[in-house]
Amino acid sequence: MSEEFLKVAHAARDAAAELAPLPRAPKDRALRVMADALVAATETIVEANALDVAKARESGTSEAMIDRLRLDAGRIEAIAEAVRQIADLPDPVGEVARGSTLPNGLELRQVRVPLGVIGIIYEGRPNVTVDAAALCLKSGNAVMLRGSSSAYESNTALVKVMQEALEDTEVPSGAVQLVPGLTRDSVKELMRARGLVDVLIPRGGASLINSVVEESTVPVIETGVGNCHVYVDAEADLDLALTILLNAKVQRPSVCNAAETLLVHADVAGTFVPLAMAALAGAGVTVHGDPAFVAQGAVEATDDDYYAEYLSLDIAAKVVGSLDEAVAHIRKYGSAHTEAIVTRSQGAARRFVALVDSAAVAVNASTRFTDGGEFGFGAEIGISTQKLHARGPMGLPELTSTKWIYTGDGHIRS
Amino acid sequence: MSEEFLKVAHAARDAAAELAPLPRAPKDRALRVMADALVAATETIVEANALDVAKARESGTSEAMIDRLRLDAGRIEAIAEAVRQIADLPDPVGEVARGSTLPNGLELRQVRVPLGVIGIIYEGRPNVTVDAAALCLKSGNAVMLRGSSSAYESNTALVKVMQEALEDTEVPSGAVQLVPGLTRDSVKELMRARGLVDVLIPRGGASLINSVVEESTVPVIETGVGNCHVYVDAEADLDLALTILLNAKVQRPSVCNAAETLLVHADVAGTFVPLAMAALAGAGVTVHGDPAFVAQGAVEATDDDYYAEYLSLDIAAKVVGSLDEAVAHIRKYGSAHTEAIVTRSQGAARRFVALVDSAAVAVNASTRFTDGGEFGFGAEIGISTQKLHARGPMGLPELTSTKWIYTGDGHIRS
Repeated sequence: MSEEFLKVAHAARDAAAELAPLPRAPKDRALRVMADALVAATETIVEANALDVAKARESGTSEAMIDRLRLDAGRIEAIAEAVRQIADLPDPVGEVARGSTLPNGLELRQVRVPLGVIGIIYEGRPNVTVDAAALCLKSGNAVMLRGSSSAYESNTALVKVMQEALEDTEVPSGAVQLVPGLTRDSVKELMRARGLVDVLIPRGGASLINSVVEESTVPVIETGVGNCHVYVDAEADLDLALTILLNAKVQRPSVCNAAETLLVHADVAGTFVPLAMAALAGAGVTVHGDPAFVAQGAVEATDDDYYAEYLSLDIAAKVVGSLDEAVAHIRKYGSAHTEAIVTRSQGAARRFVALVDSAAVAVNASTRFTDGGEFGFGAEIGISTQKLHARGPMGLPELTSTKWIYTGDGHIRS
Repeated sequence: MSEEFLKVAHAARDAAAELAPLPRAPKDRALRVMADALVAATETIVEANALDVAKARESGTSEAMIDRLRLDAGRIEAIAEAVRQIADLPDPVGEVARGSTLPNGLELRQVRVPLGVIGIIYEGRPNVTVDAAALCLKSGNAVMLRGSSSAYESNTALVKVMQEALEDTEVPSGAVQLVPGLTRDSVKELMRARGLVDVLIPRGGASLINSVVEESTVPVIETGVGNCHVYVDAEADLDLALTILLNAKVQRPSVCNAAETLLVHADVAGTFVPLAMAALAGAGVTVHGDPAFVAQGAVEATDDDYYAEYLSLDIAAKVVGSLDEAVAHIRKYGSAHTEAIVTRSQGAARRFVALVDSAAVAVNASTRFTDGGEFGFGAEIGISTQKLHARGPMGLPELTSTKWIYTGDGHIRS
């Protein structure tokens, strides 16, 4: 590992040890100071951001992507406001998860504690830099941020402002660190920093996440790949199915909880397939379907379509012979994010919920509700699609571990 | 991956899908059938075990190790009884961990579900084969067992009996699998079976655990390495400190929650070091100490001694200038398993608990209490020394994940 990386990692580790025992009040004060400092530094941040924007434009980046990258006074104010909202959330640290007095009189408590140092590898918008830092600090963790190289100047400026702001607070300024370097090497260093970094959370596309999972010796929480299914059951209310399908696919197609595959029970396919085709076409959606859908004007689907996370106005579609066939399809092709069933049958809903092995299962509701904000968490660091530690939307408690404490007066084992 | 391995892994995966939605009653029935079958097959099991014992004797294995390996009617009855006790434990699957009705009327539930397929890599006694299988089945998981090659015949016989017993039950017999092959290759296959195996739990020595952590692409739960500390504070009751120290070191030195290092505050070292030296010597313990201990007859400690998990009648020992120095020593040399403080001071206890970052912290109690049985879990699959997913003794709930379920009547996002 490079000396530069080790310096930053050790600084984060030291800061984590100092930050972990801090109670809520000083952490909230620090977050508010940070928010104010970001607004006060608007000019500096916008200047740094302009360098990234110019570089992106030179390299022929699309205007849509450049817009995602751009920071202005309004956006910085919104970023700062999000930090203030995180300050308002309850502190998960110190929460007693379980507790009892054992038969021998030992008092046993399981208490939430910070994870330590969290590494975040992310693509896209620079607001993630601040959002991730704020969530980690609030939960008592130090953070090592490795953003997109396309936002390097912006991220450097944002981290500098946050670190300087923390210098006047009880939160150690080393708790927010930018991983040095622009190349893939710095990602590799983060992935091999076992013992220095407690957990890595990659946020981005499937290829980023897969490469981190493959190469990392630091424990990883996989987030955000969503090939979500809407299954229209034999006993579905078809109007309701259409409403849910359209909302799940069209309301915001670029996000991981948008629907990517439609499965329709054969019993209602005769009526529902033409209805769905018309409605989806009306909303500008390209359907990649099996013969039943192709007969109504869909493009022919390949096996890859059923695996796809389009994140666009495309959807794969298939008629299935039974609920169990729908479940088998989801198990084979899905990413275990969110699957919805539309049905009037209590039995079908119960069976679908029991058999589908995904982070979230929606009954007569859009897949779009799998979201920390919608679940009432107040904030979200990502949506875990793995089974270990956290599954589904991750709020502040998911950024903690626990510690067992037992107190006696000379208790020994016999 | 070998065809043989894939066949077994797919069988486990299919069984896991079938087992996951089963409620408690059929699982408990299957466990009781399994327990009875083990007792009924005593002769077959003892014969297979005799082959392992003979091979061990040929290769010059110590009598103590051979005794650990040996199975007889009494031990098989005890193994079966442990299975029946696991059947008596509550089922974590289906437990509602959290739940609420969202402002829009969506009913949200977070429910415990099985992890899926659990791989266990373990050394030592063949009773682990049955114990691990029973814990996994009870929590709705399929299990892939990779025991020590020295117990291969015993493990093969035990798994065969369990599989055959399950054939007459509602639990699919494929839910218990022995990883085929005796070489390290079969461990490697298990570690690379991402997507087939949901989690790996290595149980054994530090070198086994480290190699799994380094090489596995399957998520790992580290267990069981314990360099536990007893810190005798400036304000300790010294009699009590001596009792706790002796219990933590001597009561069962071969286990991970036994004490391996003694730290003594300088203020009480003058009195306590000679007391401790005499008592430890009386119990047959070799002390590897710093100059203060060497002056009282200890062997000189090297840096390695402070890192060591002896699992024997040895202990490292050191005088520290302050509680914070003790904490810093533990952070540097410890394995984050269990650390005890002996003190009459509420402030010292509070500070030690806050600053020590280990799975368990004991106040005026022996480190030996960090144990699933002592904590009232009824059974234990291991003691996690990592921060993700589970930390400390792991009972049945630690073998589960969760699933979010939300139910509406046509809810869409606007």
